Amino acid sequence: MIYLDNAATTQPSERAVARAAEYLKDKFYNPSARYHGGELVAKELKESRDALVGFVADRTEYDLVFTSCGTEADNQAVFSAGKRGNVVISAGEHAAVYNSAVALKNRGIELRIALLRRDGSVDSEEFLRLIDEKTSLASLVHVNNETGAVNDVAAVAEAVKRKNPRCVFHSDGVQAFGKIPFRLNSAIDLYSVSAHKIGALKGTGALLRRKTCNLSPLVYGGGQEGALRSGTENTFGIACFRYAAEEKFACLEKNAVRLSGLRERLWALLDPALFERISPNHGSPYILTVSAACLRGEVLQRMLWDRGVAVGTGSACSSKKPHSRVIEACGYSAKTLDGVLRVSFAAETTEEEVACCAREMNFVARKLKEKLK
Amino acid sequence: MIYLDNAATTQPSERAVARAAEYLKDKFYNPSARYHGGELVAKELKESRDALVGFVADRTEYDLVFTSCGTEADNQAVFSAGKRGNVVISAGEHAAVYNSAVALKNRGIELRIALLRRDGSVDSEEFLRLIDEKTSLASLVHVNNETGAVNDVAAVAEAVKRKNPRCVFHSDGVQAFGKIPFRLNSAIDLYSVSAHKIGALKGTGALLRRKTCNLSPLVYGGGQEGALRSGTENTFGIACFRYAAEEKFACLEKNAVRLSGLRERLWALLDPALFERISPNHGSPYILTVSAACLRGEVLQRMLWDRGVAVGTGSACSSKKPHSRVIEACGYSAKTLDGVLRVSFAAETTEEEVACCAREMNFVARKLKEKLK
Repeated sequence: MIYLDNAATTQPSERAVARAAEYLKDKFYNPSARYHGGELVAKELKESRDALVGFVADRTEYDLVFTSCGTEADNQAVFSAGKRGNVVISAGEHAAVYNSAVALKNRGIELRIALLRRDGSVDSEEFLRLIDEKTSLASLVHVNNETGAVNDVAAVAEAVKRKNPRCVFHSDGVQAFGKIPFRLNSAIDLYSVSAHKIGALKGTGALLRRKTCNLSPLVYGGGQEGALRSGTENTFGIACFRYAAEEKFACLEKNAVRLSGLRERLWALLDPALFERISPNHGSPYILTVSAACLRGEVLQRMLWDRGVAVGTGSACSSKKPHSRVIEACGYSAKTLDGVLRVSFAAETTEEEVACCAREMNFVARKLKEKLK
Repeated sequence: MIYLDNAATTQPSERAVARAAEYLKDKFYNPSARYHGGELVAKELKESRDALVGFVADRTEYDLVFTSCGTEADNQAVFSAGKRGNVVISAGEHAAVYNSAVALKNRGIELRIALLRRDGSVDSEEFLRLIDEKTSLASLVHVNNETGAVNDVAAVAEAVKRKNPRCVFHSDGVQAFGKIPFRLNSAIDLYSVSAHKIGALKGTGALLRRKTCNLSPLVYGGGQEGALRSGTENTFGIACFRYAAEEKFACLEKNAVRLSGLRERLWALLDPALFERISPNHGSPYILTVSAACLRGEVLQRMLWDRGVAVGTGSACSSKKPHSRVIEACGYSAKTLDGVLRVSFAAETTEEEVACCAREMNFVARKLKEKLK
């Protein structure tokens, strides 16, 4: 199986899992336990925390709260900061931010949604126009999970703060962390990341936080994570996250350059009579989204699976809807929306896999097109 | 190391972890993906769900929502049901229910807390007296995690429903599930369980739900878990949970009888001049809580660790407080509170381990007492 749906989830790194396995065996203790075994696990948890923060931020300025997933991190950011006035997001937000913000709206908070450009990036001027003195939260996805478009969150965050210094700025960094070169500047207050998108496990995420930014718990209880996220810490998942992140960050720039090349190679190999490109030229190296107009993406997806290639059709997280809300917001017609396929790479993806994927995509699209004639 | 702090967390079952490992390897797919690999994982997720529900409830009447832990399950129950009027809990609730209920109080909901009996069980008459036509939620822990006292939640739930049929009844079953024989009767609407207390992993829990009981999400996003808990499902953790539960439920009654015997054996071996019993005679077979009055529990705990025995000092989840809120609510003096030790068993605990634990507890308590003379 050629697996090219890595924006949905990745195969866990065997090495990271093997290194973390001690937390299932000798070091299974509860990190809140006050004997040596518990204290040792708590100390190592702190080391994982520091390591993960250090990959993208200054540790003196930022810390992080471990959560159960990127979605929970997004929810905590939205519900914690979006308590009054209005909240500004983009139409390209992942469902975790989008639907949390809609829930806020149902509680009486005004929700303002900035439009997207054709490639899925936000119209940043409009985003900024929506910010005013009553904006309590601005949330902008870093890498759009459906098109790979990269928003310049550092610049937008700074511009937001110039307009309203009290506005909390959050970014969903799930598709950026461990994939594109980036460090948090101090205008970014909160930043969500996820483990299973970079070779670690489902069930672990984190919310990075500028230490001066107030945060409220979403989950109350025993007071773990500085009382910001109660519940016994997922020590095994967190260790996997740390080790997988170490692997990714060690080769981050090299991987990004190589995969940019593979992405363009894939695009060059696709038959332009069959596929329209949705992803921008300078988006995430890890995502190429195209559309086989007039064909149905999920039919192509199943045909590809049967031929040994796994690709996505937009976000796996909201695959129950007929069309992608995000791609629709890019301004495409229903015919284009029907045919969306997202090919997403991992650091391990090879040129041969990409060539095979292109061949099979051309084959199944041609076949389906003929069938429908 | 003789590990007798199993109410804090358990050593994962090697067999359950090995069986679930396929979700880290061949079956790492996102269960929301619409190709065969994803659909297969989604189908098996449903099988795990059915299996877990079936252990304690009628599958036609109950389903469950997978959460990241017991604490999150408790939070979802409390915040979902406690939306108006008043909320009734006991003073013996785990911090996950207690502090969620306090958060509700801070939002303007009236919080009514029923007192405990000396053994940590609720004064059920008082609990019922607090229920009125405005009670939106009643939450009562099944097995008290600090004393092992068992509340007759089935009977209390029925009595609550007789007084107010619209009141939602929730029980935190984290220390009961897989440990004491029990099936949910239809007066119990919501029931929280946790994986890592029965030989599975930290990072997985579930909220069982009577299908007719409305539930709100705590985490919004891609619509997983019937839109009741968004975020990519922790497929590995959930499979571990299922397999560990299979192991526990296969021998549940046998284990309960054997461990009741071990608990009484431990108590019989402890020097009555040193230790006072806090746990009831007919509580959970898995927990014996005692106090070495006038001594400090955490000092004894560290001395025991150094001699190869791990025990708890009340709840590991809230071990930053000087005294246990729950044991205090049982009506003990500060001197007794200082000396609390909780010995908690796993299904695998042996008679030799218990005998050794008793010997060491007597030794360290005697030693510390002499030192303080």
